[in-house]
Amino acid sequence: MIMTASSPSHWSSAVSDITPEDVYVRGYSIQTLMGSLPFSAITYLIVRGQLPTPGETRMMEMILSSILDYGLQKSGTVAARAVVSVNPQMTAGLGAGVLAAGEYALSPEGAGCFISDTYKAWKQSGRPMQEASKQLVAGLHAAKRRIPGFGHPVFRGVDPRAEKLRIAAVEAGVWGETNQWYASVHEAFRTATDKPDLVLNDVGMLAGIMTQMGFTPQEMAGIAVLSTIPGLVAHISEELQSGVRNRIIPDQNVAYARARHDLAADMKARGWS
Amino acid sequence: MIMTASSPSHWSSAVSDITPEDVYVRGYSIQTLMGSLPFSAITYLIVRGQLPTPGETRMMEMILSSILDYGLQKSGTVAARAVVSVNPQMTAGLGAGVLAAGEYALSPEGAGCFISDTYKAWKQSGRPMQEASKQLVAGLHAAKRRIPGFGHPVFRGVDPRAEKLRIAAVEAGVWGETNQWYASVHEAFRTATDKPDLVLNDVGMLAGIMTQMGFTPQEMAGIAVLSTIPGLVAHISEELQSGVRNRIIPDQNVAYARARHDLAADMKARGWS
Amino acid sequence: MIMTASSPSHWSSAVSDITPEDVYVRGYSIQTLMGSLPFSAITYLIVRGQLPTPGETRMMEMILSSILDYGLQKSGTVAARAVVSVNPQMTAGLGAGVLAAGEYALSPEGAGCFISDTYKAWKQSGRPMQEASKQLVAGLHAAKRRIPGFGHPVFRGVDPRAEKLRIAAVEAGVWGETNQWYASVHEAFRTATDKPDLVLNDVGMLAGIMTQMGFTPQEMAGIAVLSTIPGLVAHISEELQSGVRNRIIPDQNVAYARARHDLAADMKARGWS
Amino acid sequence: MIMTASSPSHWSSAVSDITPEDVYVRGYSIQTLMGSLPFSAITYLIVRGQLPTPGETRMMEMILSSILDYGLQKSGTVAARAVVSVNPQMTAGLGAGVLAAGEYALSPEGAGCFISDTYKAWKQSGRPMQEASKQLVAGLHAAKRRIPGFGHPVFRGVDPRAEKLRIAAVEAGVWGETNQWYASVHEAFRTATDKPDLVLNDVGMLAGIMTQMGFTPQEMAGIAVLSTIPGLVAHISEELQSGVRNRIIPDQNVAYARARHDLAADMKARGWS
Repeated sequence: MIMTASSPSHWSSAVSDITPEDVYVRGYSIQTLMGSLPFSAITYLIVRGQLPTPGETRMMEMILSSILDYGLQKSGTVAARAVVSVNPQMTAGLGAGVLAAGEYALSPEGAGCFISDTYKAWKQSGRPMQEASKQLVAGLHAAKRRIPGFGHPVFRGVDPRAEKLRIAAVEAGVWGETNQWYASVHEAFRTATDKPDLVLNDVGMLAGIMTQMGFTPQEMAGIAVLSTIPGLVAHISEELQSGVRNRIIPDQNVAYARARHDLAADMKARGWS
Repeated sequence: MIMTASSPSHWSSAVSDITPEDVYVRGYSIQTLMGSLPFSAITYLIVRGQLPTPGETRMMEMILSSILDYGLQKSGTVAARAVVSVNPQMTAGLGAGVLAAGEYALSPEGAGCFISDTYKAWKQSGRPMQEASKQLVAGLHAAKRRIPGFGHPVFRGVDPRAEKLRIAAVEAGVWGETNQWYASVHEAFRTATDKPDLVLNDVGMLAGIMTQMGFTPQEMAGIAVLSTIPGLVAHISEELQSGVRNRIIPDQNVAYARARHDLAADMKARGWS
Repeated sequence: MIMTASSPSHWSSAVSDITPEDVYVRGYSIQTLMGSLPFSAITYLIVRGQLPTPGETRMMEMILSSILDYGLQKSGTVAARAVVSVNPQMTAGLGAGVLAAGEYALSPEGAGCFISDTYKAWKQSGRPMQEASKQLVAGLHAAKRRIPGFGHPVFRGVDPRAEKLRIAAVEAGVWGETNQWYASVHEAFRTATDKPDLVLNDVGMLAGIMTQMGFTPQEMAGIAVLSTIPGLVAHISEELQSGVRNRIIPDQNVAYARARHDLAADMKARGWS
Repeated sequence: MIMTASSPSHWSSAVSDITPEDVYVRGYSIQTLMGSLPFSAITYLIVRGQLPTPGETRMMEMILSSILDYGLQKSGTVAARAVVSVNPQMTAGLGAGVLAAGEYALSPEGAGCFISDTYKAWKQSGRPMQEASKQLVAGLHAAKRRIPGFGHPVFRGVDPRAEKLRIAAVEAGVWGETNQWYASVHEAFRTATDKPDLVLNDVGMLAGIMTQMGFTPQEMAGIAVLSTIPGLVAHISEELQSGVRNRIIPDQNVAYARARHDLAADMKARGWS
């Protein structure tokens, strides 16, 4: 509501610019980029603003391949397919699907914020890593605060997807102090909670690696969404071709209140004449 | 893709304008409108660009009350609740919910297009209504084209909601030639298909009345969505308070293909070295 | 990512339920509701779960009339019109428009959280209102924390829209201790910051009144969005009828970086062979 | 509205399925896919349901690199940045951005429908290609129907991006009869309209190549959206870091009607007492 004529209408952008003959993405001609770099490298270029190394590109491929799809056990897929069962438009389904990433699934944003905030605080403190991570965990434990990126309902000791990501990051040369800090917090947490098998899960690993690579937490959320778009396109296409209309939840899966009230009597009781 | 610097950046609008002290909606001060007209009348004013009569206002109230909600048998509700079970934001849920109105449910747009297009064609033809509607139905029937707004899985003869809307429209003085034309098409269709009990359903009735009131088919879609927003807000709030996370479709409701392939062998077969 | 077969697929709902002949909203037949209650009252019923009094209904009308529209000085309108200038679908435009309410505009959610949280804390403290509000303000001031709902770029002393809402709330019998608490915080803030003219603005007033009426902060966000839907429908319809395609920001309003780089040289420098 | 308990609640899917230890995408373990195939190949696999050849993968890379971004001359970017200037959430911006692809820009869907529909009709006719394309163009020209994918505001003779895509398709072994058919229609159109310099543009070329590769028109729309996600992530991140709030259209770019009416007088005239 509180908006006035002084609200901003001037923009600035370094992402891309256009000439009559070409488009320049971060200063590189699209016509030159086409065929020179894989899409994963171009993704890094557009978002981070600089060319990736081959190692960073391999890491981007791994990151973009690690989420992909989760059948109908993914809420965004349910939302996307429900939408196109009424409104058979690809973009409508994608619009619903991308909204279903956030606090409770699919987004490394929360873990990314935790890692970068605590990493910065540790660096400013000048204290030894192990000591600082122990104290951090003790404080969070006392305050009953959750640490994002730890735990998994099935995996114990090691989350195999997280381990693949870790190995790839080391090989690609994008493993660094941020990751060591987060691993140290993980170790301190296992000790403090006496859960030696608690894994550092795939979301946590993704967040740690992307923090080290220089992505902001919000950009991490965007890249996680990007990795799920092909699956959403596939599901929406499958739904459109299924011929099923108006997806619903069957009555046996719903506990309805099924109250019955008398409108006239209740209106009178509430003061309507 | 084909966008150039000549693409439009100049706008014109008659919906509202702002001064430092007030906002004017269709020329009326919001501070004056507040408390002078019900929300249904203001909806008519903003969309149609002129003040409604009291009769048109009563009709708007009826229209906005006729859809409302459909439990978990409405795809948009499923989509909205699925989204907020991951991303607990009211606007994210609403964003998904409003996308689930379209060709297969909830939108009078298709019926509105049919009525206004065929009505215009009939008026230009100068022929008697009954004769023209018979011929139209015969042509559509021969071409196996569906006519929107007819039929219901339960109701026979009369759809009681449609009947309530019709009576309200007559009382409110918004029943006119457009409605008579559509009723004539309905009658011709019942005769041609030998289905004397086939109802003119609520969506068809809504579309006919809103056409007579001067709304465009796209505006009808918008008003239908508007009538479902309170229900979406209620469902999203209920979902947020439920504490349930990551809504999914249970495995017993899904037939998964569950194929298993050997990646290395298949890559070799497809030409990867 | 961390989703398993134990993720929930069972639902419960008290919003509405369906029988073959009718739909029951909070226990009331839709066919009975149609024509018996204005849309504003039905909105209250669906969201709050109980019939409003006539006074609560008048208040809902005021609330739903207080935001409405803000020309092209509203980001959601810009987003909605930009979307339909490419994808000419009413629901696509509405989907974009409803996403543009949140932390920086249009949503009373932040103010609603502040009011209900601080009100509860005060009630639990058992201390006098004035003393508690002074101390709260002092603490927030020291921590340089913002209090939502105060201030306006133009209005001094009183925000006339907020004042209309306040008078309506008193008349409708929905003014209560929550509002007094927030007014007391406002008074304490004016004194502490030595800004005797700082207004309690319309968003703050809306949040206070809706808190008193029993809405959750998330529901307030939904109702604020609801009040803007008619304006969005009008703007989208105007855009669709304008014939303008591909809305853009004109080059004179954008500062582009316009860097130019040599891809081959930079790839070599980054380790690509 | 017309939904009943018989509406579908049973699903089937061949996109992916889940076991406690892994996720299988089109039958391939995600843990095996990670690092084995580039993201572009995985995109093809998920959407088309089978492994791509290396040639098809190179083509996917080209397709995904050909749209990318268009500065602030792209309506979806304007919508996405406008949304997050109010509601600073990555997914909210992406939700708005993906809705801004459709009939007037960014989507090869229309061209894809045209190509596959006319190609099928030609194959069924059994007539020579050149003769059939001439007759098709003559019919469309007489009916004043537009053919999608032809023309560009700047390029004459050849659209360089389209030419890069064409060369890549031939090299990748994904150039076939569908493309020849569309080129033949293009040639016939140039002759019939006496516009020998009219280009077959990038959208048309993308649609032709993706049709040949077996994508449905709706899947093409999804892949075009996918190619723009990295740019949207970059723009949304830039906007979030800009600190600008509440993006608007400046008054000098808007022609407001600025009518002023007297509510009391007009209500009386419209029958309100």
